[in-house]
Amino acid sequence: MSQATNQSWGGRFSEPTDAFVARFTASVNFDQRLAPQDIQGSIAHATMLARVGVLTDDERDSIINGLKEIQGEIERGEFNWSVPLEDVHMNIEARLTEKIGITGKKLHTGRSRNDQVATDIRLFLRDEIDVIEVELKRLREGMIELADREAETIMPGFTHLQTAQPVTFGHHILAWQEMLARDHERLLDCRKRVNVLPLGAAALAGTTYPIDRHVTAELLGFDRPTENSLDAVSDRDFAIEFTSFASILLMHLSRMSEELVLWTSAQFDFIDLPDRFCTGSSIMPQKKNPDVPELVRGKTGRVYGHLMSLLTLMKSQPLAYNKDNQEDKEPLFDAVDTVRDCLKAFADMVPAIEPKKASMYEAARRGFSTATDLADYLVRKGVAFRDAHEIVGQSVAYGLKTEKDLSEMRLDELKQFSVTIEQDVFEVLTLEGSVAARNHIGGTAPNQVRAAAQRAREALSAFKAGA
Amino acid sequence: MSQATNQSWGGRFSEPTDAFVARFTASVNFDQRLAPQDIQGSIAHATMLARVGVLTDDERDSIINGLKEIQGEIERGEFNWSVPLEDVHMNIEARLTEKIGITGKKLHTGRSRNDQVATDIRLFLRDEIDVIEVELKRLREGMIELADREAETIMPGFTHLQTAQPVTFGHHILAWQEMLARDHERLLDCRKRVNVLPLGAAALAGTTYPIDRHVTAELLGFDRPTENSLDAVSDRDFAIEFTSFASILLMHLSRMSEELVLWTSAQFDFIDLPDRFCTGSSIMPQKKNPDVPELVRGKTGRVYGHLMSLLTLMKSQPLAYNKDNQEDKEPLFDAVDTVRDCLKAFADMVPAIEPKKASMYEAARRGFSTATDLADYLVRKGVAFRDAHEIVGQSVAYGLKTEKDLSEMRLDELKQFSVTIEQDVFEVLTLEGSVAARNHIGGTAPNQVRAAAQRAREALSAFKAGA
Amino acid sequence: MSQATNQSWGGRFSEPTDAFVARFTASVNFDQRLAPQDIQGSIAHATMLARVGVLTDDERDSIINGLKEIQGEIERGEFNWSVPLEDVHMNIEARLTEKIGITGKKLHTGRSRNDQVATDIRLFLRDEIDVIEVELKRLREGMIELADREAETIMPGFTHLQTAQPVTFGHHILAWQEMLARDHERLLDCRKRVNVLPLGAAALAGTTYPIDRHVTAELLGFDRPTENSLDAVSDRDFAIEFTSFASILLMHLSRMSEELVLWTSAQFDFIDLPDRFCTGSSIMPQKKNPDVPELVRGKTGRVYGHLMSLLTLMKSQPLAYNKDNQEDKEPLFDAVDTVRDCLKAFADMVPAIEPKKASMYEAARRGFSTATDLADYLVRKGVAFRDAHEIVGQSVAYGLKTEKDLSEMRLDELKQFSVTIEQDVFEVLTLEGSVAARNHIGGTAPNQVRAAAQRAREALSAFKAGA
Amino acid sequence: MSQATNQSWGGRFSEPTDAFVARFTASVNFDQRLAPQDIQGSIAHATMLARVGVLTDDERDSIINGLKEIQGEIERGEFNWSVPLEDVHMNIEARLTEKIGITGKKLHTGRSRNDQVATDIRLFLRDEIDVIEVELKRLREGMIELADREAETIMPGFTHLQTAQPVTFGHHILAWQEMLARDHERLLDCRKRVNVLPLGAAALAGTTYPIDRHVTAELLGFDRPTENSLDAVSDRDFAIEFTSFASILLMHLSRMSEELVLWTSAQFDFIDLPDRFCTGSSIMPQKKNPDVPELVRGKTGRVYGHLMSLLTLMKSQPLAYNKDNQEDKEPLFDAVDTVRDCLKAFADMVPAIEPKKASMYEAARRGFSTATDLADYLVRKGVAFRDAHEIVGQSVAYGLKTEKDLSEMRLDELKQFSVTIEQDVFEVLTLEGSVAARNHIGGTAPNQVRAAAQRAREALSAFKAGA
Repeated sequence: MSQATNQSWGGRFSEPTDAFVARFTASVNFDQRLAPQDIQGSIAHATMLARVGVLTDDERDSIINGLKEIQGEIERGEFNWSVPLEDVHMNIEARLTEKIGITGKKLHTGRSRNDQVATDIRLFLRDEIDVIEVELKRLREGMIELADREAETIMPGFTHLQTAQPVTFGHHILAWQEMLARDHERLLDCRKRVNVLPLGAAALAGTTYPIDRHVTAELLGFDRPTENSLDAVSDRDFAIEFTSFASILLMHLSRMSEELVLWTSAQFDFIDLPDRFCTGSSIMPQKKNPDVPELVRGKTGRVYGHLMSLLTLMKSQPLAYNKDNQEDKEPLFDAVDTVRDCLKAFADMVPAIEPKKASMYEAARRGFSTATDLADYLVRKGVAFRDAHEIVGQSVAYGLKTEKDLSEMRLDELKQFSVTIEQDVFEVLTLEGSVAARNHIGGTAPNQVRAAAQRAREALSAFKAGA
Repeated sequence: MSQATNQSWGGRFSEPTDAFVARFTASVNFDQRLAPQDIQGSIAHATMLARVGVLTDDERDSIINGLKEIQGEIERGEFNWSVPLEDVHMNIEARLTEKIGITGKKLHTGRSRNDQVATDIRLFLRDEIDVIEVELKRLREGMIELADREAETIMPGFTHLQTAQPVTFGHHILAWQEMLARDHERLLDCRKRVNVLPLGAAALAGTTYPIDRHVTAELLGFDRPTENSLDAVSDRDFAIEFTSFASILLMHLSRMSEELVLWTSAQFDFIDLPDRFCTGSSIMPQKKNPDVPELVRGKTGRVYGHLMSLLTLMKSQPLAYNKDNQEDKEPLFDAVDTVRDCLKAFADMVPAIEPKKASMYEAARRGFSTATDLADYLVRKGVAFRDAHEIVGQSVAYGLKTEKDLSEMRLDELKQFSVTIEQDVFEVLTLEGSVAARNHIGGTAPNQVRAAAQRAREALSAFKAGA
Repeated sequence: MSQATNQSWGGRFSEPTDAFVARFTASVNFDQRLAPQDIQGSIAHATMLARVGVLTDDERDSIINGLKEIQGEIERGEFNWSVPLEDVHMNIEARLTEKIGITGKKLHTGRSRNDQVATDIRLFLRDEIDVIEVELKRLREGMIELADREAETIMPGFTHLQTAQPVTFGHHILAWQEMLARDHERLLDCRKRVNVLPLGAAALAGTTYPIDRHVTAELLGFDRPTENSLDAVSDRDFAIEFTSFASILLMHLSRMSEELVLWTSAQFDFIDLPDRFCTGSSIMPQKKNPDVPELVRGKTGRVYGHLMSLLTLMKSQPLAYNKDNQEDKEPLFDAVDTVRDCLKAFADMVPAIEPKKASMYEAARRGFSTATDLADYLVRKGVAFRDAHEIVGQSVAYGLKTEKDLSEMRLDELKQFSVTIEQDVFEVLTLEGSVAARNHIGGTAPNQVRAAAQRAREALSAFKAGA
Repeated sequence: MSQATNQSWGGRFSEPTDAFVARFTASVNFDQRLAPQDIQGSIAHATMLARVGVLTDDERDSIINGLKEIQGEIERGEFNWSVPLEDVHMNIEARLTEKIGITGKKLHTGRSRNDQVATDIRLFLRDEIDVIEVELKRLREGMIELADREAETIMPGFTHLQTAQPVTFGHHILAWQEMLARDHERLLDCRKRVNVLPLGAAALAGTTYPIDRHVTAELLGFDRPTENSLDAVSDRDFAIEFTSFASILLMHLSRMSEELVLWTSAQFDFIDLPDRFCTGSSIMPQKKNPDVPELVRGKTGRVYGHLMSLLTLMKSQPLAYNKDNQEDKEPLFDAVDTVRDCLKAFADMVPAIEPKKASMYEAARRGFSTATDLADYLVRKGVAFRDAHEIVGQSVAYGLKTEKDLSEMRLDELKQFSVTIEQDVFEVLTLEGSVAARNHIGGTAPNQVRAAAQRAREALSAFKAGA
C-alpha cells in the first residue's frame, strides 16, 4: 500500500492518490475544528460497545484514555495533523492506534465515517446554538432595558422614510426586540431537530453488531436516535435550517444597522454611538464611522450566501452519502461564527446607544407628523374618515406653501378647510398627546411601551427557565 | 382631485400620477388574490368597531352586507378591478362606498393599508398551510404503506452512487418519509408564527380609536395580537420562514426525483412509473419520459429563488413600512402554489411506483455489496476491524481481476486472504442474511422496517389529532 | 389514442396522461408568449427545408401562409390555446394541420421541440435586449445631461454615510452613469452569446435530413449556427448570463433608489421628485412617498431570485435535454419585464429630479467636510501627511467641543494646533475651493465633470453607431 | 492617543476601540493576501508622485527600497501582522515608517485606503484570471484531444435520462468543450472591466495633489484610469461579474461531474476513472468512489453562495465607500481558489478518462435508440412526419411487449405497422448508420466531430495568440 494512500481504504487500490487530488479532497484543514466532538462521540461509542459486549472493559478504558491524551495534545497544539489521512476522524484514529496498538483499530467497529461525521456536526452545532442563545438573550435584555428607559422619548416614526407619525424611541427599540424574539423561537425549534443521534447508521444501512443506540444517545445528551439509517447519513437539514435561522437574524440585524447608520448621520443626528464602536479614516481627519453596524449589515450577504450554498449542495443528491456533503462544514462553521460575533457586537453596543432627545423631538415636530391625529379629531367630530383625510390633505398642501406645520397654523387658517375644527384641536396636535392616544396593546403610548417591556422581560425569563 | 389619482390620498398632490407609474406601482393585478381574506378581515374589523362603539350596529350591518355582496361579485367574476385604485384594498373599499354610501368610508377607521395587508397575507398563508398539510400527510401515508409493502424487497444501497450494501426498498422509501416528517414539523412551527394578528397597528404606531385587538384576533382565529405596531407592519418573517420550509421540502423532493429518474433509466431499471405520470417525445417515438419527477426537480430552483428574493427584499430596510414590501406577494404566492402542486403530484404518484424486484435484486448481487459483511465476519472471528478491511480489500481486488463476486469465490480462494475464513462465511455473503443482520433501530432489516413504518403511522395519526 | 394524450407522442402509451399531470406539466400558459418567435422560426425552417429540397415550394408556401394566418389569429386574440396540447409549439402545429392538412405535419421534419424552443427563446431574448438597450441609452443620456447641468452644484459627499468631502451633484450623477456604462457593455457581451442558432440540433444529435443550418441562421439574423447539437439543446447559459446582467443592473438601480429615498427624506431634503412619481397614504394625509425608487429597490430581490433559480435549475443536469428546463422561461420572462420597466421608470424620472441647491450646500458646509483640504494645506507647507492628519483631527475635536466648523474658527484658534497655519488657509476651507482643487481625470472639479459628461456623451454616440 | 487605536485616524477620538470591536472590524487576517499587490501599487504610486514633483527622487527611492524589504519580510514569513493596525495597508505603511522614518508617512499623499484597496483587489483578480485562463485552456485542449480520439466511439445519447439516439462519445465531450468556450469568452470579457485603475479617486472625490493617473495606470498595466472617483471607490462589479462567471463555470463542471458519477456507476459502467482520482471507504472495502467529480459538484454551491453574498452585499448601498465593502474579499478569494483548483482537477482528470467502449455500444443497442431513424426512413418513403412518428410508436409498443429491439424484428413484423417498410430498413437501424447520417454542422457524425474538434483547436490557438 502506498504511503500516500489513506490506510483506511487502500486495500483495493492499484495506484496511490494523486498528490493534488489528496490535498483537493482532504478536509482535515477545516474539519479538525470538530476534534472535541469527534473524541466525545468516540468515547460514547466505545462505552456503548463495551456495554453490549463488543469491547471488553479493558479495551474500552484503553481507548478512552488514549482519546483523552489525544484531546490534550490537540488542546496544547502538539497534535500533528496529516493531509494524507484526509480528515479529523482518520487523524485521530491513526494516532490512537499509534498510542494503544491494535485495540485502537477496534474503535471503528459498528460505525462508519458517514455516521461519525454526522454525529460530530450535530454535537458541534448543538453546543454552538447554546452559546449563541446566551448572546441572543443578552441582546434582548439590553433592548428591553433601553426601551423601558426611553419609553417617553419622542421621535418621528417613518414609513417610506418619510415622517409619518410620532412614536417613542422605546417603542422603536421594542420593535427590534420582537424580531429577535421570533429568531429565538426559531433557534430553539431548530435545536430540537439538531439534537438527534445518527451514530449507528454506519455507512448507510446500519450494522451487524449488536449496538444499542439508545445508550449512545443518552451518553451524548441526544433526545433519541434517528429513525432511518439512509436518511441519517445523508440528512443535512439541520445545517440548512440553522443557516436559514441565521439569514433571518442577520436580515433583522441589517435593518437595525441601517437605522443606526442613518441615525448617526449628520442629517438625522438622532443618536450617539460611543467612540469604542466606531473607527476613523486614514485620510479624512474629521470622520467617525459607525463601522460595527455597517460591517454587520455587510455580513448579511455572507450568511445568505451560505444558505444558498447549502441548499444548492443538497439539491438532487441521490441517497445515501455523497462526497459533495464534505462541503457542508465551512458554510456552517462560518455562519455560526458570524452569528455569534454579530450578536456579541450588538449586545455590547445596544445598551451604549445614547439618544439625542432634543434632536429627535425637533424632527418629530416637523413634517406634519400629527396629520393623522387631525383626521382622527375630525372623525370624532362626525366627519367620515375618507373626507377627513381629504380635508387634512388640503391643510398640509397649505402648510407646505406657507411653511407652517399644522400646530403653527391659527384657528382661522385651519377653519378654512373645515368649520368643525375648534380650539380644542391644538391638544391633539401636540406630540405628547399624539403618542399617548395610541393606547392599546402594540401601540406607542408610553404606558403601553412599559407594559410591553415588562411582558418581554417575563417571557425571556420563562425562556431561561424552560430552555 | 385628478381622476387618475387614487382617491384615498390625493388631497396633498398637485399633479396626477404618471400613467406608466400608476401601472408600475399598482399591485391589484396580483393582490386581488387576497380578496377573500381582505373581506374576511374587514368584516372582523367592522364587528370589533361596533363592539367598542366606533360604529353603530346598523353601520356594521350595512358594511358587512355590502362586503358579502362584493364577495359574490368577485366569485362570479363580475367585479371590475381598477388599476388606478392601486390594490385590492382600495378596489373593495371604493366599491363598498359605491354600494352603501358614506358609511363605507367609515370602515377604514382605526386601520391602515399597512396593517390591513399584513393581516390579509397572514390569513391567506394560514389557510394555504392547512391545505398543504393535507397533501403532505397524504404523501407521507402513501410512503409508509409502500414501505411496509416492500419491507423485504432487496435493492443495492448506494454511497457515492457506487454499490455499497444491500438495503430493502421499504427502508429506502422510509428514508424519504423521514425527510418529510421534518418538513411537517417545520411547517407547523412556521404556522405558529403566522397565526398572529397585526391589525390595529394602523399605519405604524397604533391608532387613537378605542379598538380591542383581542376581539379581532378571536374573530379571525388568530392566537393573539402582535406585540408591537412598528414591527407588525414591517415584519415579513413569516413569508421568509415559509419559503425556507418550502426550499428544504423541494430540496427533498428533488432528491427523490433524482432517484426516480435514475431508477426509470434503462441502466438502473429499478421501477416502472405508470404512463399517466409520463410524457413522450415529439420526435423520438420510443420515449417515455419521467416528466413529473423531472419537473419537480426543476421547480426546486424556482422556490430557492423566491427565498433569495424575499431575503434580499427585506435586507437593510429601515422601519416601518416601505413600498419595497409590495414585492413580497408574488414570490409567496408562487411558492405556495408550487409546494401544493408538487406535493399533490407526488402523493398521486408514489403509491403507483412499481418496483422491478428481479432487476433490483440482481443489481444488489453484483458490486461486492456484501464486502462489509465479510469484514464484520472476520471481526467476529477476532480480526481487528482495520485489518479485516484490508483483507476484504484484497479479496475485492482479486474479484475485480477474476470477475467474480465474493459469493462466487470458492472457499480456498477466500482463504488466500485470511485463514480464519470458514465454510460458514457463505451465509453472511447472501443478500437476505446481510439485510436481516442490520437489526437495530434505524437498520435495514425487514422487521425493523415494518416496526419503523408502524411508528411513523402512529406519529402521523397523532399529528392529525393534535394539529 | 386517448383524447387527453398529446397527439405528437401518444403511439407508445397505454393509458392517457392523468388530468392533473397534464395541467402540471403543460407550459402553454406561459410559453404562448413565444408564439411570434415560434412562427418566425418555423417560417425560416420551412424556407430552408424547401431550399434543400425536403419540401416543395408549394408545401413551403402553404405552410408559411398557414402560419401567418395563425399569427393573425393570435394577435386578434382568437386563438384557442389548449392545455392537453402542452405547449406553444404543439398548439401552433396542430392548428396548422387543421388549416392546411397533411402538409402541416411536414413542418416538424428535421427538427424537435428541443431545438425549436431553444431557438424561440434566443429570438425572444435578442429582441428584448434590443428594447432594453433603448431604455438604457435613454437613461444614460438623461443622467449625462443632468450631470452637465449640475456640474457646479455643491453637495456633501459621503463615506459611511458620514459627511466626507464636498462633491458636485453632477459628479455624483456621473458615478451613476458609470455603473450603467458597464451594464451596457455587459448587455452587449451577452447579446453576442444569445445570437447563435440552435435549430438543426433536433432532439439532441442532429438530423438525417440534408438541412443547411447556415441558411436558417441567416434568415433569422443569427451570427452562426451552434457548434454542437447536444450542447445546443441543453445550453441555458444565455438566460443565466442575461439574468446576471439584470442582477447587477438592479443592484445599481437599488443603490440609486436608496439615495433618492434618502434625499427626499425630511432629514436630507436634497431633492424634489415630481408628484407624478410619488404616491400617498390611505391614512396619513401629509405623506408623499417616493414609491418609484422604493419599488425598484424592492424589485432587486426579484431579479436576484431569478438568477438563483436558473443557476439551481441547471446544476447537475446530465445532457442533453431534461424536462427541468421547462422552468427556464418564467424567470427569464419576468427578469426581462422587470429590467425594461425599471429602466423606463428611471429614464422618465431622472431628468425630472430637482436638486434643492441651498439645502445641499448648507449640508456640505457642516460636518468638517474640508478637513482633508486643511490636511493637504499642511502637507504643502511641509508637514508629513500622517502628522497633518493628526493635527486636523485635534482641530476637529476642538470644533466638536466648541461647535464651530473649521472655516468658522479664528486664525489664532487654528494656530493652537499648528503654527504653520496662516491667513491663506481660509481659501482652502471654502467649498468652492475644495471641489475645484480636485482637478484631475475622475475628480469632482466642475470642469472635470463637464469634460467627463462630454466623453460619456461621445462614448454613448459611438455605441449607437456601432451596436 | 491610545495604543489600541489605529494611528492613522486616532486624533479625533476620546476613547480607544473596544478590544472585541478591534478584532471584529479588522481585516488583516484575510486581506494580508493582498500584500504583494499593495506593495506593487504603492511602488507605482510613489513613482508617479515623484514624476509630478510631490516626492523627491530620494524620497521615492527610499520608499521603494523600504517596500521591497518589507516584501522580502513577508515572503520569508518574518512580517509581524498586527490586528490593531486593522488591515494590510496600515500594517505595511506602519512598518515602512518604522524602517525609513518620516518619509514613509508621505507615501499616503494623494490617496486613501478606499482607492488603494480597490486597486489592490483589481491587481489581484487580474493576476488570478490569467492563472485561471491557463488551466481553462489546458482543460479545453484535453477535451478536444479526447473527443478527436473518440470520434467514432458510439454511446447512447440521452434526453430525460432515457435512451434517445446513438451519439459518439467524442461528440458528447465536445458538448462539454462548447460550455467551456463560452466560459472562456466570459472570463476575458470580465477581465476588460477588471483592468481599470481606481487609484487617484482618493477617499471619494479625487485629490488636490497634481497627480497623473495615466502614469500610474501605465506603470501597473491597467488599460486606463476610472472615469469617476465616487464610482471608483464604491464599485465592486468586477467581483460580482467574476463570481457570476465562476458560477456558470461551476454549473458546467457540476453537469460534467454528474455524468462522470453516473458513468462510473455499476449501472452505467461507461468509463473508468484511474484510481488516483478516486478514494475508498473506511468501512466498505470494495468501494472506489469518484470523489473528484463529486466534490467539484458539491463546490458549485460554494460558488453560487459567494455570488449571492456579493450581490446582497452591494444591494442598496449609498455612495461612496461603506464599511460593508470589507466583506467583498473572502467570497472573491474563495471563488478564485475554487475555480482554479476545480479546473486543475478536471484538466488532470479528463485526459485520463477511459471509455469502456463495449459497454457503451451495448447500451446504445438497447432502448430503441434508432426509432427516430425509422421514422425518418418512413418520411423519406413519403409518409408525413407525424404519421411516421405514430407508426414507430406502435412498433415500439410491440417491441416492449415482445422484448425485441427494432433491429431484432423480422421484416414481416415491421410491416404490420406500415407496408412501406422494405428490406433496406435494416441499414438505417444500425448504430453506425444512425450516427453517420447526422452529417451537418453540429451533428454527431464522426467526420463532423473531427471537423468540430479541428475548429475548436484553431479557435483556442487564436485565443492564445490574442489574449
